[in-house]
Amino acid sequence: MNASSPQQTIVTAGILAIGDELLSGRTRDRNIGHLASVLTAAGIDLREVRIVADDEDAIVEALNALRTRYDYVFTSGGIGPTHDDITADAVARAFGLPCEHDAEAMRLLGDMYAARGLEFTEARQRMARMPRGARHIPNPVSTAPGFIVENVHVMAGVPQVFVAMVEAVMPTLRTGATVHSLTVKSPFGEGDIGTALGKVQAAHKNTAIGSYPKYDGKSFSTEIVVRGRVLEDCEAAARAVEAMLEDIGRRKQAAAAIMEA
Amino acid sequence: MNASSPQQTIVTAGILAIGDELLSGRTRDRNIGHLASVLTAAGIDLREVRIVADDEDAIVEALNALRTRYDYVFTSGGIGPTHDDITADAVARAFGLPCEHDAEAMRLLGDMYAARGLEFTEARQRMARMPRGARHIPNPVSTAPGFIVENVHVMAGVPQVFVAMVEAVMPTLRTGATVHSLTVKSPFGEGDIGTALGKVQAAHKNTAIGSYPKYDGKSFSTEIVVRGRVLEDCEAAARAVEAMLEDIGRRKQAAAAIMEA
Repeated sequence: MNASSPQQTIVTAGILAIGDELLSGRTRDRNIGHLASVLTAAGIDLREVRIVADDEDAIVEALNALRTRYDYVFTSGGIGPTHDDITADAVARAFGLPCEHDAEAMRLLGDMYAARGLEFTEARQRMARMPRGARHIPNPVSTAPGFIVENVHVMAGVPQVFVAMVEAVMPTLRTGATVHSLTVKSPFGEGDIGTALGKVQAAHKNTAIGSYPKYDGKSFSTEIVVRGRVLEDCEAAARAVEAMLEDIGRRKQAAAAIMEA
Repeated sequence: MNASSPQQTIVTAGILAIGDELLSGRTRDRNIGHLASVLTAAGIDLREVRIVADDEDAIVEALNALRTRYDYVFTSGGIGPTHDDITADAVARAFGLPCEHDAEAMRLLGDMYAARGLEFTEARQRMARMPRGARHIPNPVSTAPGFIVENVHVMAGVPQVFVAMVEAVMPTLRTGATVHSLTVKSPFGEGDIGTALGKVQAAHKNTAIGSYPKYDGKSFSTEIVVRGRVLEDCEAAARAVEAMLEDIGRRKQAAAAIMEA
C-alpha cells in the first residue's frame, strides 16, 4: 500500500450466514469470525453481518439488501445435498436466474463418486445446482463447489470447507488499503480513562480509537485499539494514548500518597 | 405447555450485536450463541441476527428494521463510558426520544463510585445516559444498567455482564410454546441419506428436520435434528429417521456382500 496516497481504495463487504442451527444456538458459528479476520488482513472493510434461517424469503431479502450495499457479499451454509439446503435456490431467485444442475459441477461430482465406487444419488446431484452462469469456487475438501454470481460468493457452512473456499476466493478479490491496528493495554477501567481518551480521539481524527473493557471477575481493565489506514497517524495516536495512561497513573499515585499522608 | 393446543403462541426475536471489534475479527462474539440457546430454551424463536459497526446510522437502521419485525429485540455492546459507546444515542434516535442522564442511574452509579472512593467522572456519567423513560435492566456485575425501550432490550457487550443481564431479562418476557429437539446421529454422509431424508421430511410436515454434516478430516457423518412444538410428532419423525438409517445400513451391507462374492 501507499500510505500517503490521497485516494485510498475502500472496499466493503457483508457476510450472510444461513442456517436454523445458528439461530437455535445448537451450532456456535465459527465462520464469521474467521472471515472477518481474513478480510481485515486484506484491507477489506466488513461492514455488516446477518444470520438468517433456512428460509427462502429471509435469504433472498437479506442477500438483496447486502449485495446492493457492499462491494462483496459472502454467504455460508445451505449448499449441501439435503432438503434443508436451499441457498442455491434462494440466490438464484435473488438474481432472477434459473437454478439448475451445472454441467461442470455434475462432471466433477460424478467423476469423484465414480472413483470412490459410490452412487451419484439424486441428493448428491443437488450439490451441482446453482444459478445459471455461476462461476465455481473450488472445494479441495469434498469436491462440491461453491459458486459466485456477480459480487456474491456462496460457500459451504462446514468450517473446514468454508476455510478452504475462503482461501480460494481471497486472491480473486479487489483489496483495499490495509487498516493498521495498534493495541495499547490499559490497567485502568474505562471509567478512569474515558474522558481523556475521548480527547485523544478528537485530536486524532484520522484514526478510529476503540476501547474494549475486560473483566477478570474482580475488576475491569481496558484494551485500547487504534485503527487507521496511515501507519504514522496510528503511531501518533497510540503514543498519545500511552502518554495519557502514564498521566493517569501519576495522578492515581499522587492521590494515593495524599490519602496516606 | 399444552402440546395439543391448536393455538400455540409463537414469540419471535432478533439480535443486534454492535461493535467494530466484531467486524474486524478482533473479538469473536460469544453473546449471540449464548442468547440464541437461552431464547430457544424459553420457546422464543430467534429469527435474525445482525452485527453492525459502532456507527449511529447503521445501528438506527438495523434496530428499526428488527424492532418492527420481531416481538423482541436484544442488543449487545456500546453502552460503556468511552467515546465509541454510542448505542444509547442510537437507540434514542431510532425511537425519536431524547437521550439524557437518567436520574436513578446517576444515583446508582454515584453511590457505587462514592462507596469505592472513586471519582464519578464525566466518562462514568455517560453510562447513566439512556432514552427518556427507559426502564432499567439491572447489572449485578458492574452496576451500570442496561435499559428497555418498548420491545428493545439494550445490554452490555462484555460477556459476563451480558449473561447477567440476559438472566435478569428472561423472566420478564412472554415466552412461546417450547420447541422440542431430538437428535439422531447418522454414520453416513448427507449424500447417502439426502434423498431418503427428504421423503421423511415430506411425511412429517409438523416437524422441521435439519441435517448437519460433520467432517473429521477424513469422512463426513451427519447429525439429524428433528424440531417441532409437539413432542409426539418429533418422536414419530425421529423414529422414521432411525428406520431410514437402518435401511440404508442394510443396503450398504448387502452391496458390500455382493462385491465380496
